[in-house]
Amino acid sequence: MLILVINSGSSSLKYQLREVGPDGTEPAEPVIARGLVERIGVPGSGVDNHTEALEQVDAELEAVLAGRTIDAAGHRVVHGGERFTAPALVTMEVIRAIERLAPLAPLHNPAAAQGLRAIAEKWPQMPQVVVFDTSFHQSMPEEAWRYALPDALYTEHGIRRYGFHGTSHDLVTGMAAETLGIPRDQFDAVILHLGNGASATAIAGGQSVDTTMGYTPLAGLVMGTRSGDVDPSIITHLIRNGAYDAEQMDRLLNKESGLLGMTGHADMRQVVDNAHAGDRRARTALKVASYRLAKFVGGYHVAVGGARAVVFTAGIGENSAPFRAAVLDRLGPLGIAYDAEANLERSNAPRVISTADSAIPVLVVPTDEERAIAQLTLTVSQRHGAL
Amino acid sequence: MLILVINSGSSSLKYQLREVGPDGTEPAEPVIARGLVERIGVPGSGVDNHTEALEQVDAELEAVLAGRTIDAAGHRVVHGGERFTAPALVTMEVIRAIERLAPLAPLHNPAAAQGLRAIAEKWPQMPQVVVFDTSFHQSMPEEAWRYALPDALYTEHGIRRYGFHGTSHDLVTGMAAETLGIPRDQFDAVILHLGNGASATAIAGGQSVDTTMGYTPLAGLVMGTRSGDVDPSIITHLIRNGAYDAEQMDRLLNKESGLLGMTGHADMRQVVDNAHAGDRRARTALKVASYRLAKFVGGYHVAVGGARAVVFTAGIGENSAPFRAAVLDRLGPLGIAYDAEANLERSNAPRVISTADSAIPVLVVPTDEERAIAQLTLTVSQRHGAL
Ligand SMILES: Nc1ncnc2c1ncn2[C@@H]1O[C@H](COP(=O)(O)OP(=O)(O)O)[C@@H](O)[C@H]1O
Ligand SMILES: Nc1ncnc2c1ncn2[C@@H]1O[C@H](COP(=O)(O)OP(=O)(O)O)[C@@H](O)[C@H]1O
Repeated sequence: MLILVINSGSSSLKYQLREVGPDGTEPAEPVIARGLVERIGVPGSGVDNHTEALEQVDAELEAVLAGRTIDAAGHRVVHGGERFTAPALVTMEVIRAIERLAPLAPLHNPAAAQGLRAIAEKWPQMPQVVVFDTSFHQSMPEEAWRYALPDALYTEHGIRRYGFHGTSHDLVTGMAAETLGIPRDQFDAVILHLGNGASATAIAGGQSVDTTMGYTPLAGLVMGTRSGDVDPSIITHLIRNGAYDAEQMDRLLNKESGLLGMTGHADMRQVVDNAHAGDRRARTALKVASYRLAKFVGGYHVAVGGARAVVFTAGIGENSAPFRAAVLDRLGPLGIAYDAEANLERSNAPRVISTADSAIPVLVVPTDEERAIAQLTLTVSQRHGAL
Repeated sequence: MLILVINSGSSSLKYQLREVGPDGTEPAEPVIARGLVERIGVPGSGVDNHTEALEQVDAELEAVLAGRTIDAAGHRVVHGGERFTAPALVTMEVIRAIERLAPLAPLHNPAAAQGLRAIAEKWPQMPQVVVFDTSFHQSMPEEAWRYALPDALYTEHGIRRYGFHGTSHDLVTGMAAETLGIPRDQFDAVILHLGNGASATAIAGGQSVDTTMGYTPLAGLVMGTRSGDVDPSIITHLIRNGAYDAEQMDRLLNKESGLLGMTGHADMRQVVDNAHAGDRRARTALKVASYRLAKFVGGYHVAVGGARAVVFTAGIGENSAPFRAAVLDRLGPLGIAYDAEANLERSNAPRVISTADSAIPVLVVPTDEERAIAQLTLTVSQRHGAL
């Protein structure tokens, strides 16, 4: 079967055309085509909106498809609010619900809805499934999702912790439990998704019980260009003294902070290289980022009632042995010991990098959100008899 | 000797006149007089500024002093910036430095400086000592005090973690180490100062290496009226969509959030009582506050390389057995076990409330910032030959 996986950003559209068997098995090369439409809505780009972007995808796929038809489409949607606690088969009501959640993700949800409507019009028979960044975290207990703010901010503005990267945290949780031979519903762990965006999730009984991102993906860890947590007063002070307005502050925190703000580079590879070459700012940034992450691991070890695994994933988590080492070097107080050689080995398979006597196993598990979306699209479509 | 301890708030001035021997020993009743001048600068209050407030204190003390003279004055000053790493004997240069730090504590530092100038004028011979909320935390390493923000925010605006409650954290650290018979310079611990304002401090080698308050006292734990940490985007979003301006947001986060925002009551006693009576909002607030605190304990256990004590202090920490229990019930993953009866006992003495087999001892240690300021005033004055 052919599944089209679509990831609509505010001004971009990434896609993969994937082959998957009706039982979920994949061929050796499951990705048949992939592509990226950029600068959507940017004057002069020739692509005015996500509907036109999908026309372009359609054209690009024609030769590849050679007459075959796409069986289903799976869409990554940033925000499912409190409405979506799992992936969903797309109906008009579902599209409208995604549009109604636009205040929570003003750049992303309307773009995703446009893509959904365009496909529903073009291929009305094709089942579509939406997979949300947030839905995996809807299992969090209230003490984890509530801010200590007046009720009205939650009841009137929907301000609460939602969490993101859910598809990845979910996938990696399952793979880590399987790797360790622990039934998922008994699996308590801390998952570290460290990409350009980064978040840690506390897993108890296989479910998300806390996560570092919050109302938006800004909160928590130090990221490529995002600050993560800062004293909230910093924002009100800089706005009140006239140094920044709210929009500039938003940009500063989301696009000009994190590794970029501290070192001039958003890319972890570059930061690690510069630190090795003696760059003081890069060294400081590595310390700040790894130290903050280590503290979250300690906090989530408490939150889950004692972790049975600490799991690294995503670009930095899978590939940066020096960054993993910087974090793990701090986790001795939890009884964690890692094997320096195993940490240096490169592989695409899930693997354990802790020593045999580590109180908590440490794993590296590659994530693959597109693969996860394709699988979910298949199972959700089948469950509804749409495939 | 007589030492006047002065705590200048933005619109208030609290004082204690204390008796202390030249070697620091205290009589059974060291507080000879205490008082509070309120509504300073409020039209119609009759007290225009902190200079006039001190006139009033002088008048109130006349009868008590009965001709004796005050030997020294010790002032609590909120912000010592990076300039002050310890209490200091007051000179004109010191007063000017405190005034220059006003941008960091616009309500508090100018008031404190006024008090210092008034006393220096009235009693030019009297040694004065300033004790800072921040100075104890100047030992933090850079990975703890730096935010992941562009450098300019630090270099131009002084934006970094400063931390507060330092006098209390310092005092309680020393008392806890002594109670456990551990040399202070080998003492690694987590100190929980839980009053109306609340902060946790990570102690390594007897020194502060991290603390939950940040650039201002807003950050970190859930407090009486402060939110503690929130996703910074909440602020920019609510300002950008016009729901609040920066000043309103500042008030909301500092004065209308925390326990008050969640339950209608800022006072922990009331919140605990309401929770027992079945109030759902009060129960949620207790869970949010205790859960967040437990996570910080886990994080700081990692930060200090393995804590040798967890110490409760201040109004809530010393008096609220139910709140301590709610926190400690979550700390099993650190090997912490507490004695439910010992937790219920009331006492003014430092005491251990963990079981003999707890991996980390848990203590309750009463704080007394005024006593600490008086002691520091004595030793700093003596060291400079001013007493
Ligand atoms: N070999 C490597 N060493 C260190 N960092 C790496 C390596 N490969 C990728 N990364 C880092 O991974 C990050 C991107 O992760 P990724 O998961 O692709 O991000 P996204 O959040 O955009 O999906 C970048 O900071 C990049 O530098
Ligand atoms: N017996 C008690 N039980 C529970 N909370 C108490 C008790 N006594 C005092 N508190 C709480 O302590 C807090 C005030 O602490 P305190 O250290 O005096 O504050 P601050 O010095 O920061 O103003 C209040 O929330 C109050 O309810």
